[in-house]
Amino acid sequence: MMSDHTFDGSAFNVPDPAFATRVRDIFEGQALMRTLGATLLRVAPGDVEIGFEFNADFTQQNGFLHAGVTASLVDTACGMAATTLMPAGADVLSVEFKVNLLRPAAGARFIASGRVIKPGHTLMVTHGDLWAFPQATSTDSDRVHVATMQATMIRR
Amino acid sequence: MMSDHTFDGSAFNVPDPAFATRVRDIFEGQALMRTLGATLLRVAPGDVEIGFEFNADFTQQNGFLHAGVTASLVDTACGMAATTLMPAGADVLSVEFKVNLLRPAAGARFIASGRVIKPGHTLMVTHGDLWAFPQATSTDSDRVHVATMQATMIRR
Amino acid sequence: MMSDHTFDGSAFNVPDPAFATRVRDIFEGQALMRTLGATLLRVAPGDVEIGFEFNADFTQQNGFLHAGVTASLVDTACGMAATTLMPAGADVLSVEFKVNLLRPAAGARFIASGRVIKPGHTLMVTHGDLWAFPQATSTDSDRVHVATMQATMIRR
Amino acid sequence: MMSDHTFDGSAFNVPDPAFATRVRDIFEGQALMRTLGATLLRVAPGDVEIGFEFNADFTQQNGFLHAGVTASLVDTACGMAATTLMPAGADVLSVEFKVNLLRPAAGARFIASGRVIKPGHTLMVTHGDLWAFPQATSTDSDRVHVATMQATMIRR
Repeated sequence: MMSDHTFDGSAFNVPDPAFATRVRDIFEGQALMRTLGATLLRVAPGDVEIGFEFNADFTQQNGFLHAGVTASLVDTACGMAATTLMPAGADVLSVEFKVNLLRPAAGARFIASGRVIKPGHTLMVTHGDLWAFPQATSTDSDRVHVATMQATMIRR
Repeated sequence: MMSDHTFDGSAFNVPDPAFATRVRDIFEGQALMRTLGATLLRVAPGDVEIGFEFNADFTQQNGFLHAGVTASLVDTACGMAATTLMPAGADVLSVEFKVNLLRPAAGARFIASGRVIKPGHTLMVTHGDLWAFPQATSTDSDRVHVATMQATMIRR
Repeated sequence: MMSDHTFDGSAFNVPDPAFATRVRDIFEGQALMRTLGATLLRVAPGDVEIGFEFNADFTQQNGFLHAGVTASLVDTACGMAATTLMPAGADVLSVEFKVNLLRPAAGARFIASGRVIKPGHTLMVTHGDLWAFPQATSTDSDRVHVATMQATMIRR
Repeated sequence: MMSDHTFDGSAFNVPDPAFATRVRDIFEGQALMRTLGATLLRVAPGDVEIGFEFNADFTQQNGFLHAGVTASLVDTACGMAATTLMPAGADVLSVEFKVNLLRPAAGARFIASGRVIKPGHTLMVTHGDLWAFPQATSTDSDRVHVATMQATMIRR
């Protein structure tokens, strides 16, 4: 069966060759990302990853990452993924997102991924996930699927 | 036409008479709420409001409140609303939520409201909203509807 | 506390004075609504209701209305509500919707309601509900809240 | 990068060895599926596909498949996928679903797929998609991604 979510990066139209610089500038312009200490790990066409180290300042009552922080990281990854496919000077805003919280967000570090499922001139539909790494040294084979998101972004 | 979202608080079964204390304890146990400086404004059966003062540390690239912070506040209001209807000792976790971002989250202060739409033994369906107050002195007649949420909570 | 979902119909800008005729034409152009035997009960600015009589052809394995039929009725009510606020000649498509199924969809008849929460030139955010009436003669005081929806519509 | 949605079917715990028969019985018990003329194409652990031939009785005003029919097919695929992982005698109900409509649902035939993303004793989180095949003879390489869904199912 073909996977419905893999894609060939080259299949996307990338109107701004300087997309990576633009995405990094916008990401750095998000005070929340600085406050969280989040970092951009990957900026490819329609495909962005954000890293986050566990920090007890952002937890809920059981010591897990708060669902709103999960949403913050994955929404940002989705928004940045949509931004990679926008023309120079364009920015995006979130129209809506829906997140399913699959497991408690426990771990030493996390990766939020966002990918464009359907590009468009005005709207972009994206898919995102949060992955937990139990230890700082855990590898992809140890990662745990914490949350999954569908989000719509609009060009601004 | 009857409104579909009003409710008579007395219609809810409130198994824990000390629900307000329990909710306040859980809220205070959320490090994220402390980090945000959010406060509990109202704790009634199935109906909770949270206050938040604008803080530039939690913004996105245009200086508006980040959509993930909007989600954090409204999800917490929804979770606390569900908690009011739980028995003593019970806690809730978010199963999923969906937020529509209606307008840029600009304002001097914000109120996140959460209400139980459908109580249940295991699952509770809630509705939440974020309201912006343009000035610190703005009243309810000036408030702006920034976001609306549907969220499912599960007893833990 | 002000209700967040009531609205004064006069507050909406209604650019097409013939909106009701246009909505009825579009509704009648939906073959699915004819197949379901659904009828338009109310067409007001930003506010539409659709009636549906129980029909065993559209049930799931327990004899309840199928969740997809619930979604069909409420999504259509939301789309028609958005259409009331569009200019002459304009049509809408659903961008996304999320439905929470609150109770089994059992009843003799049903009313799907859709209302515009946030109008806009391109996008409209709507809220919808499905109400079940246990008997054909049941009144609003007997109705049961079966499902609640948030939906985004786009002008076409 | 690892795909977040592929899975090894053997990784699922399948408590009922007769799951395929049980799923087929439940599917055939859904009057809506008979009314739509939908058929089960694939029943594997946590992975179900449903086929649907275009039928003008189920369209919206532009002649595309109605978004509610899209939701009906994908929700059923998700529900049946969850059912494959349930013990003998168990059934599922939809708790909630969210669908993003990516393109007009135009085609000669359609396949709705549903997969379990997170199994659980009480709740199962699923992902679904609708694929359009422009011609009856179109193959997977011609298929078009029409809609994507996240859905939560509960054991009944």
